[in-house]
Amino acid sequence: MTQHDHEPHDVSRRRLISTVGAAAGATGLAVGATGGAVAQATAQDAPKAPTPLTSVGSTRVPFHGTHQAGITTPVQAFGHLMAFDLVSGAGRKQAAALLRRWSSTARELMAGESPAKNTGISLDAGPSSLTVTFGFGRTFFSRTGLTKELPDELAPLPDFSGDALEKSRSNGDLWVQIGANDGLVAFDALRELQRQADGTARLRWQMNGFTRTPGATSRPMTMRNLIGQVDGTRNPKPSEADFPERIFVPGSGPKPGSASPAWMAGGSYAVVRRIRMLLDDWDEKSQADQEKVIGRRKSDGAPLTGGSEDTEPDLEKRTSDGSPVIAADAHVRVTAPETNGGAAMLRRPFSYHDGFRDDGAPDAGLLFVAWQADPQRGFVPVQRKLDRGDALSRFIRHEASALFAVPGGPSKGEYVGQRLLES
Amino acid sequence: MTQHDHEPHDVSRRRLISTVGAAAGATGLAVGATGGAVAQATAQDAPKAPTPLTSVGSTRVPFHGTHQAGITTPVQAFGHLMAFDLVSGAGRKQAAALLRRWSSTARELMAGESPAKNTGISLDAGPSSLTVTFGFGRTFFSRTGLTKELPDELAPLPDFSGDALEKSRSNGDLWVQIGANDGLVAFDALRELQRQADGTARLRWQMNGFTRTPGATSRPMTMRNLIGQVDGTRNPKPSEADFPERIFVPGSGPKPGSASPAWMAGGSYAVVRRIRMLLDDWDEKSQADQEKVIGRRKSDGAPLTGGSEDTEPDLEKRTSDGSPVIAADAHVRVTAPETNGGAAMLRRPFSYHDGFRDDGAPDAGLLFVAWQADPQRGFVPVQRKLDRGDALSRFIRHEASALFAVPGGPSKGEYVGQRLLES
Repeated sequence: MTQHDHEPHDVSRRRLISTVGAAAGATGLAVGATGGAVAQATAQDAPKAPTPLTSVGSTRVPFHGTHQAGITTPVQAFGHLMAFDLVSGAGRKQAAALLRRWSSTARELMAGESPAKNTGISLDAGPSSLTVTFGFGRTFFSRTGLTKELPDELAPLPDFSGDALEKSRSNGDLWVQIGANDGLVAFDALRELQRQADGTARLRWQMNGFTRTPGATSRPMTMRNLIGQVDGTRNPKPSEADFPERIFVPGSGPKPGSASPAWMAGGSYAVVRRIRMLLDDWDEKSQADQEKVIGRRKSDGAPLTGGSEDTEPDLEKRTSDGSPVIAADAHVRVTAPETNGGAAMLRRPFSYHDGFRDDGAPDAGLLFVAWQADPQRGFVPVQRKLDRGDALSRFIRHEASALFAVPGGPSKGEYVGQRLLES
Repeated sequence: MTQHDHEPHDVSRRRLISTVGAAAGATGLAVGATGGAVAQATAQDAPKAPTPLTSVGSTRVPFHGTHQAGITTPVQAFGHLMAFDLVSGAGRKQAAALLRRWSSTARELMAGESPAKNTGISLDAGPSSLTVTFGFGRTFFSRTGLTKELPDELAPLPDFSGDALEKSRSNGDLWVQIGANDGLVAFDALRELQRQADGTARLRWQMNGFTRTPGATSRPMTMRNLIGQVDGTRNPKPSEADFPERIFVPGSGPKPGSASPAWMAGGSYAVVRRIRMLLDDWDEKSQADQEKVIGRRKSDGAPLTGGSEDTEPDLEKRTSDGSPVIAADAHVRVTAPETNGGAAMLRRPFSYHDGFRDDGAPDAGLLFVAWQADPQRGFVPVQRKLDRGDALSRFIRHEASALFAVPGGPSKGEYVGQRLLES
């Protein structure tokens, strides 16, 4: 990265960390806002004139930087995950050309510039916090003759007893994550990037997700998922000293404990899991039973041992009859960093809802996306514990799984993955 | 409706009409906004603190009124359409009880009050312009012994040569339309209403849609669809004198030309069509060819005969070689009210994207929802003409179709459909 590129990157990084940090640190101010805020919002409060382009539309996320966008960027209202496989005959050269095209288009769309051949779907909309993030799956390296550059961190994830994975919706040579606060902007990016893959890579799977719209709640980052539970409270926070080393591959030179190749400097590893939720079963449970499964109050996300959302759960606390307040198999206990040797990952999921299954149950749940410098020290140990004894596992099904190496962000003039493909 | 109920209804009606009217009358101020607005939006503009609950979240739409919500309400970013069939053994009494439950819940959710048994998904979010709209299909009347109340307007739609309708995703006894500017609020309503149907009605089909997020563009109401075209420019405008009689069944007493039964006072008829777009075929066309198919410029929606989006297309105008500037089969000519004997409907569609089909094409297009006082004077004559000679028909497939009688809005203490079910 040249000196010239530092400024926008630093600006963006400060902004993103500041936003994420402030959000993650919110102390439940939003609790009870539904009643209060809504009581004041009468019909007359609605806009009477054409809505102006607000920060929802005008916000743009920088494409260039040490890290790719879409990792510490606040999660957007609309998300698309896509995996591609290189077509027969396409190798390193064709993949490099594709990543060059994709990077150029991602940069233009994220800046709110209309690329020449786009669909017109996002005309007259702002960039709406669009991010596009690119990653490489394990199979990419053999297909492009780059096996010597394959990171150890891309070792296949172990089998978990609760897995029921569909192969056709798992893995893939290339991964694209799209997020935007406007659905048409996100769809436009999806269409344009898929079109550009024509002749080089074929769509393997694609999943659509959503989260809260900015401004719909005063609780900005700790999202609720489709079981109605606050999700992400104990995410590593950018304000924590060890955040960079837990989430990102070190920026320059080999560091102790990191085996990642040089081209992964500033990169991260993304674990993607499609986790269907058995919502009919869940909703039959009483709120008290649901809270026992999670170990947190539904209303405000506070641990059952008291306090507010950000209070540390007291895993030792017992009731008067001697039983633990937070059950042995409560989700919050099984996932607690202190019971996982400090394993940590940055979860940045979307919810999904693809209608209803043949059995009448909703085809809905979580598009789990977790970021870490090393899946063996992030997702894997946590999931091993969950697999053995998480009360929540009775209400979820892991249906698809993938692991991708997401290289660092490009400098100006660079394309994503250039340091790998031109190594 | 009691005198007591007029005030909130009037407030809401003024607001909605004002908003819709202002939007429909916008003269393309947004054109070029992408460049201008975005150039001013730097990274520093992004929020640095927890996002406050904005009008996106706090806006609530009144449940009570002459008309149901979700017809003239500005279309929301997230939409769900659901049809239900009464289960065997459920008749008028059970249907009335269901509509009573549904109405009570819709009122609570739209007001931002948490019903006792909801899922928790929308906890700490504002109502986010949630609307829930209920309708009755033709089959509802025979199943509830109410055939004498069946409106003539619910006569089955004629077959169109371009139709390829899937029966399982068409029609239905009961229809629910949900819209909200937050995806979790919308999904929560869907879950809660479906749960309440248990034992009385079974889900027949369900479709998910989306439109622009408020604030993503300064063009608030004339949406773009997934072929990138401005869609809805010539919608009837609430400011027009004949708007009420075109869209709504007259409010009291039989009026000339209306055969609707008394219980439909203030109601409207909704034509619902799932229209898949052949986006790969469309995107292969040059912009000039696309504009010829539509008869409008892609950039700003102005007719090819000049002016801005709101300029009337000059259907007589010819080029120097004598050919019409707007082609004989251009979509804008075939749908022009002046070539349809004044037939008019209020189109309020969502876009949809359900991933990709087995043939690799996107399963995406338009959840077309059109409102009118009489489908025989709205949708049917327009669709007949489109069916015969619309250049756009080569790029779309009508895959599902339904027609519903949507009764007027409830007075306070009333439930939707009470005037039918207790007639």
